[in-house]
Amino acid sequence: MQQKLATVGTRLWPDIAKTVPDTRQYPSGVAYVDGTYTTISEAKISVLDWGFLHSDATYDTAHVWNGRFFRLDLHLNRFFGGLEKLRMSIPYNRKQVAEIMHTCVGLSGHQAAYVEVICTRGSSPTFSRDPRQAINRFMVFAVPFGSVANKEQLERGLRVAVSDIVRIPPKSVDPSIKNYHWLDLVRGLYDAYEQGAETALIRDTDGNIAEGPGFNVFTVKGGRLSTPGYSVLPGITRQTVFDICGILGFEYRAEAISLETLLGADEVFITSTAGGVMPVTQVNGQAIGNGNVGIVTEEIMKVYWDRHEHPDWSSPVEYPDS
Amino acid sequence: MQQKLATVGTRLWPDIAKTVPDTRQYPSGVAYVDGTYTTISEAKISVLDWGFLHSDATYDTAHVWNGRFFRLDLHLNRFFGGLEKLRMSIPYNRKQVAEIMHTCVGLSGHQAAYVEVICTRGSSPTFSRDPRQAINRFMVFAVPFGSVANKEQLERGLRVAVSDIVRIPPKSVDPSIKNYHWLDLVRGLYDAYEQGAETALIRDTDGNIAEGPGFNVFTVKGGRLSTPGYSVLPGITRQTVFDICGILGFEYRAEAISLETLLGADEVFITSTAGGVMPVTQVNGQAIGNGNVGIVTEEIMKVYWDRHEHPDWSSPVEYPDS
Repeated sequence: MQQKLATVGTRLWPDIAKTVPDTRQYPSGVAYVDGTYTTISEAKISVLDWGFLHSDATYDTAHVWNGRFFRLDLHLNRFFGGLEKLRMSIPYNRKQVAEIMHTCVGLSGHQAAYVEVICTRGSSPTFSRDPRQAINRFMVFAVPFGSVANKEQLERGLRVAVSDIVRIPPKSVDPSIKNYHWLDLVRGLYDAYEQGAETALIRDTDGNIAEGPGFNVFTVKGGRLSTPGYSVLPGITRQTVFDICGILGFEYRAEAISLETLLGADEVFITSTAGGVMPVTQVNGQAIGNGNVGIVTEEIMKVYWDRHEHPDWSSPVEYPDS
Repeated sequence: MQQKLATVGTRLWPDIAKTVPDTRQYPSGVAYVDGTYTTISEAKISVLDWGFLHSDATYDTAHVWNGRFFRLDLHLNRFFGGLEKLRMSIPYNRKQVAEIMHTCVGLSGHQAAYVEVICTRGSSPTFSRDPRQAINRFMVFAVPFGSVANKEQLERGLRVAVSDIVRIPPKSVDPSIKNYHWLDLVRGLYDAYEQGAETALIRDTDGNIAEGPGFNVFTVKGGRLSTPGYSVLPGITRQTVFDICGILGFEYRAEAISLETLLGADEVFITSTAGGVMPVTQVNGQAIGNGNVGIVTEEIMKVYWDRHEHPDWSSPVEYPDS
């Protein structure tokens, strides 16, 4: 510790610093915290916020691609739904939240951005444990767009391992409230790394496949798509794949997927705002199909990215220097 | 928003502030964050810390009573156990962590304090999603001692309601890793408030009683104590009650407790570092026993507080002005 020490009584006591230097590096970006636009390195919350101490928070993550938000309305629907279910309130309506998200991206200058909107339970001055006494806290941040799969993985397909960890069940936490309860997913990730895989899928309470850290999963078999229907986040990219199936005339179903069904699929892909539609070509060390990125997956990926320019599904961000 | 606005292009753009004013009130206290002792109002973490964004963190809470830490060793055992299970590391050994906790309390001046020691996954400069690339973050804070039950509730007994929400099961998150996954408990609290109760108990996956928000529960029947043995945090106060049973010659068991067993108990109490041993006299609107605080509960409460002066179970805090 580098703080000044003063001898008081029998021992040396450090000063109490008025500010804490944070020497960590953060990605470039802009945040809106406690009513103020600031740089991402200054975007901090009190350690006493129940959003941290109890993970009592909901959020949503939208993305900007080529200077356009993608399906922001769907993200706002889910975010405001989560607020209501958690009995939180914010002093902004949908239009104002969208405006703050747009402003963060505009100020950041990022043409491709990952934009998170967050509401935490907040805190009460007395540190009361009664959540009804807390003043909720609202935040937004915009950082460069990130992906679950890197460029190489997008080209050759991800290597995934299935962990026996069970996703926190709906009887405990409603998965339609997008939340930060990830210790099951993080444990799944470490299990996957130990098996030489790049990311993980974990199970539902029946032992079927649920989801991975930040993504849903799809199988393709005989031209038909399936994705788990239980114990998963209703992902916006998952919904977008349903919509693309409608456009392309593919049949799809939300249904139980066993490990055997997954391994026997013609194609597997995952979906996330962080990366979109991403191919999986190996599960538990076994090749999926012929081991190459599948043609249905490729077709859906293409339409997914093409639709980012479509005015029905995207809206332009204004930048200060444009 | 009160930030300065500047016209750039077609619209007004706010400045990007270098610091964010936080006008909230916090309890008085001292924290140790990023290697610096500071006031509690300055104790903040980056919103990009995975300890916030993924609740990827472990912690422990010890308390100081009459200027003495109570059973700090047991809390340090559990904290270091959690670090290992989550594959986190900190640059301090047990003795150094204890020293930092002592210093926070000493600097705070609190003779009765609630002291939390925390390790988060931290963050990586690239905002990588791979937890192995994150630099873990260590924190301690000391605030005034708080209790689940207030003075009146301690005297007449708490009114508790049992929710049907299921505690996040051990197959999802190992409950021996003390963690911030509380959305199930918070939902249970709101359920309890709706039933006119003051706090909640939630269930295990078999429908038996698990635990409440920050506490374990005990029943007393025919002089014998029981507490749930599955899907619960192995609480230090729970362990202390076991030890007190040894001292007083009470029989105790960790075993499944159904709602019927709970309602039919002679006495019920809860245990937490935040308040110690606290009587429950009403469950789901029904009186427990004769509706008064039970004699076994009172005896255990008395020994619990008496032992706070015992040198085997407590250690004195040094204060700057002592």
